[in-house]
Amino acid sequence: MTPEQFRQHGHEVVDWIADYWARVESLPVRSTVAPGDVRAALPDAPPERGEPFADVLGDLDRVVVPGLTHWQHPGFFGYFPANTSGPSVLGDLVSAGLGVQGMSWVTSPAATELEQHVMDWFAELLGLPASFRSTGTGGGVVQDSSSGANLVALLAALHRASGGATVRRGVEPERATVYVSRETHSSMEKAVRIAGLGSDAVRIVEVDGALAMDPAALAARMERDVARGYTPVLVCATVGTTSTTAMDPLAAIGPICQKHGAWLHVDAAYAGVSAVVPELRALQDGVEWADSYTTDAHKWLLTGFDATLFWVADRAALTGALSILPEYLRNAATDAGTVVDYRDWQVPLGRRFRALKLWFVLRWYGAEGLRAHIRTSVALAQELAGWAEADERFDVLSPHPLSLVCLTPRWPAGVDADVATMTLLERLNDGGEVFLTHTTVGGRAVLRIAVGAPATTRAHVERVWTLLREGHDWLAADFATQAAEQAAARQAERDRIAAEARQAVQPADDESAQEPAPAE
Amino acid sequence: MTPEQFRQHGHEVVDWIADYWARVESLPVRSTVAPGDVRAALPDAPPERGEPFADVLGDLDRVVVPGLTHWQHPGFFGYFPANTSGPSVLGDLVSAGLGVQGMSWVTSPAATELEQHVMDWFAELLGLPASFRSTGTGGGVVQDSSSGANLVALLAALHRASGGATVRRGVEPERATVYVSRETHSSMEKAVRIAGLGSDAVRIVEVDGALAMDPAALAARMERDVARGYTPVLVCATVGTTSTTAMDPLAAIGPICQKHGAWLHVDAAYAGVSAVVPELRALQDGVEWADSYTTDAHKWLLTGFDATLFWVADRAALTGALSILPEYLRNAATDAGTVVDYRDWQVPLGRRFRALKLWFVLRWYGAEGLRAHIRTSVALAQELAGWAEADERFDVLSPHPLSLVCLTPRWPAGVDADVATMTLLERLNDGGEVFLTHTTVGGRAVLRIAVGAPATTRAHVERVWTLLREGHDWLAADFATQAAEQAAARQAERDRIAAEARQAVQPADDESAQEPAPAE
Repeated sequence: MTPEQFRQHGHEVVDWIADYWARVESLPVRSTVAPGDVRAALPDAPPERGEPFADVLGDLDRVVVPGLTHWQHPGFFGYFPANTSGPSVLGDLVSAGLGVQGMSWVTSPAATELEQHVMDWFAELLGLPASFRSTGTGGGVVQDSSSGANLVALLAALHRASGGATVRRGVEPERATVYVSRETHSSMEKAVRIAGLGSDAVRIVEVDGALAMDPAALAARMERDVARGYTPVLVCATVGTTSTTAMDPLAAIGPICQKHGAWLHVDAAYAGVSAVVPELRALQDGVEWADSYTTDAHKWLLTGFDATLFWVADRAALTGALSILPEYLRNAATDAGTVVDYRDWQVPLGRRFRALKLWFVLRWYGAEGLRAHIRTSVALAQELAGWAEADERFDVLSPHPLSLVCLTPRWPAGVDADVATMTLLERLNDGGEVFLTHTTVGGRAVLRIAVGAPATTRAHVERVWTLLREGHDWLAADFATQAAEQAAARQAERDRIAAEARQAVQPADDESAQEPAPAE
Repeated sequence: MTPEQFRQHGHEVVDWIADYWARVESLPVRSTVAPGDVRAALPDAPPERGEPFADVLGDLDRVVVPGLTHWQHPGFFGYFPANTSGPSVLGDLVSAGLGVQGMSWVTSPAATELEQHVMDWFAELLGLPASFRSTGTGGGVVQDSSSGANLVALLAALHRASGGATVRRGVEPERATVYVSRETHSSMEKAVRIAGLGSDAVRIVEVDGALAMDPAALAARMERDVARGYTPVLVCATVGTTSTTAMDPLAAIGPICQKHGAWLHVDAAYAGVSAVVPELRALQDGVEWADSYTTDAHKWLLTGFDATLFWVADRAALTGALSILPEYLRNAATDAGTVVDYRDWQVPLGRRFRALKLWFVLRWYGAEGLRAHIRTSVALAQELAGWAEADERFDVLSPHPLSLVCLTPRWPAGVDADVATMTLLERLNDGGEVFLTHTTVGGRAVLRIAVGAPATTRAHVERVWTLLREGHDWLAADFATQAAEQAAARQAERDRIAAEARQAVQPADDESAQEPAPAE
C-alpha cells in the first residue's frame, strides 16, 4: 500500500470510526451472536489474491460489528470501563505508523525517554511517592496489563528475597509465601503459578466487613509462617478490588511488610488513577510504603488498552530479575550504563511506543480534563447509589467510594434470590440498552454497575436505574404470578388427592358408591 | 474529543503518517540524539490545561522524530526487520477505535473467532501440521512476542510434565531441564528464570559448523540427564537463529524429544513466516514433531508489532497451565465449554483485537502478495551475498538461506580485526543512509545485513554494498597509513636509540668525539 493509498484509506477508516462512535448508542451493547456465528460468516480458505479495501470495510460491518460487545457504548456498565478517546487512538495510530521498537534506549531513544518522562508526570499527578520517580532509585514503565505488572512485581520481590540470585533462586519455592485476600485479583495467583511457586504458596488473609484485608490477620499469618520457616516474599494489597472496589489499608499493612522484609505490591488497577483528584487520595493513604504500584490508564483514564502504569521504588530489583543481554543487543549507551533499557523491566523483549498515546491524552485533556472525567464518573455513581439506597427494592453494598455501585435486589419471600438476580441481569443485558456484570458477596449474587465509559452521561445512569426498577417490578410480579399459579396448582393438586382419597375409602365394588346419593 | 474533532484530527494524523513514510528515506536511519536530549526538550511539569492538537503534532516533529531510529526506513538493515504496512496500521486503528476487550469469548465474540479463523488460515498458508488447527486438539493464538510465546510454551511443557498439577508443580524445579543451543534466543533462558527453574536448568547443546543444534549431542545430553534423575521438560529448537539464521534440524530432534517425553518448542520468530513460500518450507522439515511453534508476523510479514503467531498441538496443556476463573468472569458460554477464552492462552488477562490487522493484511495483499514480499527479500539478500562472496575484501557466513547476510570484512595483517569491523559498522551507521547491527561468530565480530523492510529495493541493497566497500577501503587505507606512520615512527625510534647507543660507547669526555672526523 503506497503512502497515497494509505492516505485515502486512512481517511476512510478515520471516518468509519467517527461514524461508529456517533452511532454506537444505537447498537445493542452486548453482542447477540451465538458461538460459531462469526466464523461461519468467513470463508474457509484464506484469500489468494488481494482484495479492494472497500470489501474489507464492508465485512467489518457485516461480520465483525454484530460480533462485538461495545465497550465504548454509553450504556456499558459491565466489568470496569475500558476507556478510549480520540487522542489516545491518534497517539496509538502515530505509534503504529512509526513502527519503531522501544526494547532498548538505542533502538529509538524517544520511545524510552518519552515513557520515562510521562511516567514521572503521572507519578506527580497521582501524588505517588518520590521513590517512584526516575530521578531516584525507582522509576515507572508502561506494562501490558496489571496482570503482567503483578507478575513482574513478584519476580522482583523473589529476586530481592533471593539476595540477587539468578542461577537458582535463593529462596526455595517450597518456602516462599505470598499474601493476598480472597478479594485480590486472580492474576496474583496466576503470577504465583507462573513463577513456579505453586498455588499453595498463596496465603489468603481474612477480610473485614468492608471486604478489606485485615492487617491484624495479616500480621498473625506472617508471624506464624515465619515461625514455621517460611519466607514471606510479597504482600499484594489492593486499592479498589475488582469485585467491589474494597480498599486494603496500606498504612497499616506497610509496617507489617517492612517488619518481615516482604515486598509490598499495590494493585490499584482500576482505582489508582482516581488519585488525579486530590480529594480521593485519602483512599490510598500509606502508599509511600509500597515497593511497587500498578494502575491502568486503560480502564478509567481515557486511554486505550494497553496502558498499565507501573512503578517500582527499587528498579535494580526489577532489572535484576529480568535482564539478559545477548551480543546482538549490546551497544555503547547500554554498556556505559547511562540509559534505561525497558526490555529489562518486562517479560517480552519487544516494545511498542505506548507513551505516545499517554502523551497525546495528557496534552489534549490536561490534568484538569482527567480530573473532570474522574469526578463526573464518581458523582454519577454516587447519585445512583443514593437513589438505590432510598429504594426499598434494593440493597446497596457499602462503602462505594468511587464509580462502582454494587446492588442486591430484594425479592419476595420464597423466591430463590440468586436465580432472580441473575434473571434480572440477563433481562437487562438482553434488552441491549445497557450491559451489567455480576459478582458474589458473601455467597450471594450481586449486580455491579461500573460508571466511567467516556460517553456515559447522567441520562444513561438514569436509564439503567429505570431499567433496574422496571425489571425488578416485572420479575417480582412475574414471581408473584408464578407463586400464585404455583399455589393454585398446589391447591388443585391437594384437592385432587383429597378427592382420590375420598374415592379410595369408598371401594369401587361397594355398590353404594355406584348409586346416587339419596336426594335430601 | 468529539467524533467530529476526531474526524478532523484523524485525517491530520493519517496525512502526517503518509508524509512520514514518503519522506523517511531523507532522514538519518539511526537517531543522532544523546542520552537525555529528548527529556530535556520536554517541560518538567505535566500540562495542567488541554492544548491544541496542532501543538502536539508540532512537538512530534520537534521532539520525537529526531529521537527515533527509523525502522521503516528503506536503509534499515539492523536486527531483523520490523515490518509494518498500510493495511496493518489501519487494522490496528480500527481495533483502537472499537476499544473492545477480547479476554473472553463473551466480552466480544468476534475478537476471539476472527483470531481463531485467521490463525487457522496462517497454519494453512505456512504448511503447518493439522494438529495446530482449532478443529483438532490444538489451536493458534496471537501472542505479544516470541519471548512471551517461549514463556507460555515452557509453562505448558511444565504443566504436562507435572501431570497437570497446579497447586505445586509435579516436577521439582531442581530436577527440570531445558535444552537450547548457544544460538537459541536469550528469551528462552529468561523464560526459564521467570518460571522459577533458575538458569542452571538450561542445558546448552553443542552446535555444528553451520551453528545448528547437533542432534547427537542433544540425545547424549538428555540420556545423561535422565540417568542422573533429571526430567527433560522442553527442547527449544530454532528455525532461523537471531544471530545468523541457523536452522536446528527438527526432523532429527523430534524423535529424541518424543523418546524422553520432552516438549518440542520451535522458535521460528523471524524465519517461520518464510514458509508462505513453498520452496522455502524444506528449511523446517520435521515441524510435525513440534508441540508448539512461534513466528512473528511483525518481523517480516508486513504486520506491525505486536503480532506473534503461536500454535500448540495440545491446547489443554496450555490452558491447564494458565487458566483461572474468578466469579466476575463467569458466563454461560464459558461454563458450557463451547467457546475458547484466549485469556487462558497467555500471561495477561486483557487482550487487544489484534486479529484485525492480520485480517486486513491478508485481505489487502492476499497470499500471493505475502509470498512476493518474502521472495523479493530473499532474492535481494542472495544477490548481496553473491557480490560479497565474489569480493576478496569480505568473508560471507554460510549458509544464508533467507534474507540475512552475515559478513566479516578482511583486514590487513596486524590490524585488530574486531576493532576494525566495529569501526566500519559505526562509520556506516553514522553516515545515516543505512543502519546495520552486529553479532559474534566464533568469538569474532560479524556484520549482519537483514533485508526485509517493505520499502527496501534493489537500489538500497546496492547502496549498502557500495558503502560497505567504500568504508572498508577507506578504513583499510587509513589502517595502512597508520601502519606506515607507526612503522616510520618505530624506525625513527630505532634510529634514535641506535644513535644514543653510539653516543654511549663514545663518552662525552672523550675528546675525539668532540672533534670532527678528519676529512678523507
